[in-house]
Amino acid sequence: MLIVKIGGGAAINVAGVVDDLAALSEQTVLVHGANAARDRLACALSRPTRVVTSASGYTSVFSDDDAIDLLMMAYAGLRNKRIVELCQARGVNAVGLSGLDGRAVQGRRNSGIRVRDGGKTLLLRDNSGKPTGVNVPLLRLLLDNGYVPVLTVPIADEDGRAVNSENDDIVAALARALGCGRVVQLIEAPGLLADPADPKSVVPRVRPDELAGWEERSEGRFKRKVAGLRKLCADGGPEVVIADGRGPHPLADALAARGTVIA
Amino acid sequence: MLIVKIGGGAAINVAGVVDDLAALSEQTVLVHGANAARDRLACALSRPTRVVTSASGYTSVFSDDDAIDLLMMAYAGLRNKRIVELCQARGVNAVGLSGLDGRAVQGRRNSGIRVRDGGKTLLLRDNSGKPTGVNVPLLRLLLDNGYVPVLTVPIADEDGRAVNSENDDIVAALARALGCGRVVQLIEAPGLLADPADPKSVVPRVRPDELAGWEERSEGRFKRKVAGLRKLCADGGPEVVIADGRGPHPLADALAARGTVIA
Repeated sequence: MLIVKIGGGAAINVAGVVDDLAALSEQTVLVHGANAARDRLACALSRPTRVVTSASGYTSVFSDDDAIDLLMMAYAGLRNKRIVELCQARGVNAVGLSGLDGRAVQGRRNSGIRVRDGGKTLLLRDNSGKPTGVNVPLLRLLLDNGYVPVLTVPIADEDGRAVNSENDDIVAALARALGCGRVVQLIEAPGLLADPADPKSVVPRVRPDELAGWEERSEGRFKRKVAGLRKLCADGGPEVVIADGRGPHPLADALAARGTVIA
Repeated sequence: MLIVKIGGGAAINVAGVVDDLAALSEQTVLVHGANAARDRLACALSRPTRVVTSASGYTSVFSDDDAIDLLMMAYAGLRNKRIVELCQARGVNAVGLSGLDGRAVQGRRNSGIRVRDGGKTLLLRDNSGKPTGVNVPLLRLLLDNGYVPVLTVPIADEDGRAVNSENDDIVAALARALGCGRVVQLIEAPGLLADPADPKSVVPRVRPDELAGWEERSEGRFKRKVAGLRKLCADGGPEVVIADGRGPHPLADALAARGTVIA
């Protein structure tokens, strides 16, 4: 089976992804982001997305209750249902789910984000968490009956409350739980780049044991992304293809190994 | 089995409904509105909800593409996921679905709304439609595996595109398709009122054949609501209880026939 993660950037050609998906016979789970939709909505509502950098150098979105409302609107609402609509219009029988639905993705609430504030370290508490498990029977029920689950945040914490989570961590939890052999990640770049400024510098193959070095050299959101990749590929994880989501056939190209293959 | 329709008003005690639901053993489908959340969002985004009155005197929301975006955010996003969260936090294994998901609710796009404009009749086309069928196997799959489907708009048109639809029509389609014997509708009033200005004037019992008279005497949104009730109760439809959604135990009270029983 196949997991396809669709990045949340505005330039991702979701219709092209769905066209490619309609031509596949493999069981597939879609996971999607919606950061462009979220940021646009946050801006229109004058509730700008707050990003914090932890003491250890990882950035993440600070998720207060308002931010969870936004997440529900932009991720589980607008983007999820527009993707499901594109699927349904092309004969792909999609069912959109957040991690809350049937506790599709169960998580553990974070104790807090350690941030530096002047000379002090503060613990910021928010509604964020890490996936700890997946409702495999629910996903199998859907997959075995011909449905394509389309998953996004929020996920459920221990008490069933909504928490934000990194989509890359969700993909890792899904891949492990479903025994998935192949993961495609569609982003707004042609793959992992040796030189971030040069889109021609795609590295065609990366070994999982090289990811620690990539993580060390990275900054900001990308550092978090590589950390997620490292978790995903650890201990005989799936083959991962990171490919350009902006072309006319993003998924077909990725499955033809155009991009960066991590194996 | 039981269908519970939760109105979209801000005063509905959803937590109380879910508490009551947690104590039931009957298979249940929730259907919910979100007009308060939608109107609040529309206002914050300066995209006021446009309501049109048809030449025959029925009002409805005019659903352009922007309005469908709002619907996805407020209904399928914010309100649906907050209800699912409340359910999950109280041990009710809810799965939120729009009518698009797995084409849970299949519809037919309206040809247009006939409106009077000065002396002329215009045909306004928008993204709205009427339910024509329900994906019974999907709902049964969820119900028989212990899940509580939580349904809302949009629904799917013939081509799988999102269209808005009256929740009352969706409830009628569900009740028919699932062979449901009892429908509870929770609203921001104690039931059907003999005098709309007097909340003490609840009519405890109404026969289905009396609804045509109620429809004739009604105006605005309420006229549409009674039309939906008439459809729901036609041809040996379910027993319907219309009850107050604002109390501490809205569902338990409704099941104890506090409100208006149409049978």
